[in-house]
Amino acid sequence: MQCVAKQDVKILGEDIMEPKTYLDQNRQKRLDELFDFLRFPSVSAKSENKKDIEACANWLNDHFSQMGLKSKIMPTAGHPVVYGEHFSSPDKLTVLYYGHYDVQPAEPLDLWDSPPFEPTIDGDYIRARGATDDKGQLWTHVKALEAYLATDTDLPVNVKVLIEGEEESGAENLAEFVKEHHDMLKADIIVVSDSSMFGKNRPAVTFGLRGVAFVEVKITGPDRDLHSGGFGGAVPNPANTLAKIIGSLHDDDGRVTIDGFYDNVRPITDWEKKQFEQLPFDEEEFRTKIGTPGLHGEKGYSIIERIWCRPTLDVNGITGGYQGEGGKTIIPSWASAKITMRLVPDQKPDEICDKIEAYINKTCPEYVDCRITKHGGAAAVVVPTDGPWLAGAGSAVRKGFGVDPVFIKEGGSIPIVGTFKNVLGVDTLLLGWGQNDDNAHSPNERFSRSDFDKACYASLWLIEELSKVKV
Amino acid sequence: MQCVAKQDVKILGEDIMEPKTYLDQNRQKRLDELFDFLRFPSVSAKSENKKDIEACANWLNDHFSQMGLKSKIMPTAGHPVVYGEHFSSPDKLTVLYYGHYDVQPAEPLDLWDSPPFEPTIDGDYIRARGATDDKGQLWTHVKALEAYLATDTDLPVNVKVLIEGEEESGAENLAEFVKEHHDMLKADIIVVSDSSMFGKNRPAVTFGLRGVAFVEVKITGPDRDLHSGGFGGAVPNPANTLAKIIGSLHDDDGRVTIDGFYDNVRPITDWEKKQFEQLPFDEEEFRTKIGTPGLHGEKGYSIIERIWCRPTLDVNGITGGYQGEGGKTIIPSWASAKITMRLVPDQKPDEICDKIEAYINKTCPEYVDCRITKHGGAAAVVVPTDGPWLAGAGSAVRKGFGVDPVFIKEGGSIPIVGTFKNVLGVDTLLLGWGQNDDNAHSPNERFSRSDFDKACYASLWLIEELSKVKV
Repeated sequence: MQCVAKQDVKILGEDIMEPKTYLDQNRQKRLDELFDFLRFPSVSAKSENKKDIEACANWLNDHFSQMGLKSKIMPTAGHPVVYGEHFSSPDKLTVLYYGHYDVQPAEPLDLWDSPPFEPTIDGDYIRARGATDDKGQLWTHVKALEAYLATDTDLPVNVKVLIEGEEESGAENLAEFVKEHHDMLKADIIVVSDSSMFGKNRPAVTFGLRGVAFVEVKITGPDRDLHSGGFGGAVPNPANTLAKIIGSLHDDDGRVTIDGFYDNVRPITDWEKKQFEQLPFDEEEFRTKIGTPGLHGEKGYSIIERIWCRPTLDVNGITGGYQGEGGKTIIPSWASAKITMRLVPDQKPDEICDKIEAYINKTCPEYVDCRITKHGGAAAVVVPTDGPWLAGAGSAVRKGFGVDPVFIKEGGSIPIVGTFKNVLGVDTLLLGWGQNDDNAHSPNERFSRSDFDKACYASLWLIEELSKVKV
Repeated sequence: MQCVAKQDVKILGEDIMEPKTYLDQNRQKRLDELFDFLRFPSVSAKSENKKDIEACANWLNDHFSQMGLKSKIMPTAGHPVVYGEHFSSPDKLTVLYYGHYDVQPAEPLDLWDSPPFEPTIDGDYIRARGATDDKGQLWTHVKALEAYLATDTDLPVNVKVLIEGEEESGAENLAEFVKEHHDMLKADIIVVSDSSMFGKNRPAVTFGLRGVAFVEVKITGPDRDLHSGGFGGAVPNPANTLAKIIGSLHDDDGRVTIDGFYDNVRPITDWEKKQFEQLPFDEEEFRTKIGTPGLHGEKGYSIIERIWCRPTLDVNGITGGYQGEGGKTIIPSWASAKITMRLVPDQKPDEICDKIEAYINKTCPEYVDCRITKHGGAAAVVVPTDGPWLAGAGSAVRKGFGVDPVFIKEGGSIPIVGTFKNVLGVDTLLLGWGQNDDNAHSPNERFSRSDFDKACYASLWLIEELSKVKV
């Protein structure tokens, strides 16, 4: 494996180069390095890859050091964090970059067109496990920083780089790490590239994520399965009861009926509406792509508004009684459901869990036992749309990609972004360089090579744009 | 294995004995023979027991022949039927006895206090697989017939005995057999002892069984599981939709909401009400025994009426989405439920299947796909309560057990009884000699030895009582 050292760089051209020229001249080199990075099977979920995880962290740490970052490997209760920083001046703003060097398992291996840990170029695509999620995406920022450091150009911001090794297996220890290293991680803004653009040639700045709250409900009637002939009609059926409760959670307009569910929901702003209306979105294409007979959601909102700006309630799983082939004439002893609610600002996960618990307890008849397990969740996050960060990010993306970026939200949650906000009090800019069809988590994961290059330039401009923000 | 031959019997006492005296004098002999019968591991569900099934059928056939029945083994598409008959006169009524020589699997073996196919006496109980279900119960009728034949006493009825070998594995081929041998099986009344008394020292005549209708419902939305963050709120969730449909199937009074569901339901008669009111029934004891926090059913009916005389709708199983440990934030592609309805006279299973299908199709929103599989079922059966058969059966039970029998119904279904009614046009008397806690289908199956004896006498009186019926 090969690393770029500061002295290697200088001999490439003039003694002092512009960072942009550096990017121009090192296209192949940064790809080769990314390939080295991708060759580590740093699968965090599998204990057999523990040594690969460690080797990958070591390689990354060395790379950061040789680039000129003050870098170290820091332990967590799980896989280690690689942390690098470069301090210029207390008068400058501080940017914290977050990414992850671990990857999803590559299985099923037989569905890959080339081995997952032997990166390859196929047309415009880099194909490998981790190409887009997240090694390829985080590499753009690393190489933008290198462009400054290697050319002895003054970095206009202080830089902190936090690359974790457990994102794909739950990121369980990172929240604790952030709390513990609160001071070390202090920053003015956080940058994460671990998501997608809106579409091909539609680079995006994501200014909000929904949160999530999770509960499990278990209804129990008789203490064992009963014969539906010998007992049916006189004994509560927990599956029927659970269905009635769940069925009552939405009204005919698709709204959630839980008391106070919408209490703290921020209305969609005019600015947001304007952004969303500009997006090319074909409802029929969306419907066809997911193969559903029809679409359904809360009355009065568009598809995009429903996914990005409105809270939801979905059963993720329901189970009870006999599920095999044919029939079994029983009254099941119990039935249960897993329910998640997607949250928007300013709903609080714990409050929402309390509210659904209160609703179900109120609704559930006394002739059955009802046990609700509240798992809490993560709050929604949003970057102030009228602040300077979003404008700066937009400007950088425009310069890097040569087109106006769109401003979007995401329906999903990235819990660590909520942790950053709650623990550090810092907003996060989500600059996804990937595409929805990059096969993250699937065989043949890929990342557009041209988008990788454009994103390196965007990352470079981002440093300059963020340095100009007045806080 | 030892069989009783006609000539063996005569040397026991006088040349011609009274049938009752014969029963008195052969208590141990009929128990020994039952033990021989019980030693066959005639498990119909397991192919490894095919030879045992055959051996058992052969033994029974030999036994019938030696008793003086004209007996034969008759093939079906599955295990054979043993069929014996004794014709006295065309002027006499004909009684068809039905029972089954096959048994449930004995597993789990380690929970038995003695080997399942080595019958043993434990206090008042005969313990063995098949002791009560159904070898012991059917043996009472066989021995009552033998008491006539062995003592050269004229049988006052013509007799047909149909013992099948597949009851415990679905009785799939018997309905076909009955249709095919329609003429051979012609009778005036059918007698089946394969159920339970109302309680200890509460012998019962069962005059009705509920029917059953079975449907499966599958709701499909998107053609694969979707991320509940990326899509939630805009995409139909089949688990939520299915719950809403199922939840709407009962109103707040516990009544089924399907259009026309109660159209053909016969009201409970005054005679029935009177019978049920006489039964000792403790609601709190019933509730405690099944360990449910409370009871629930159709408003306006007692527990017994709900189970015996009112139709029901129960989810037997519901499934959809993620059911493992922890959470998985998906919108499931599909969710499904198995639903059975217990029917009462004069609901028709196919009509009821059509009605629930129409209801669900009407209720199910267009944005999901709904597939309903109608499995049909069996109609409820009832013996006319004002007819002579029930009175005769009651009288026989009274003489055999020395107490007044109760007249009861059962909430469950015995499909072959419906077949007898539909194909042969003949009613069935259900004379259960067992108890609910005899562990039929469980380890340590047992049958009261004293009830076995009393039931032999009741079976003897039954022959006489039925012979007096004017049809």
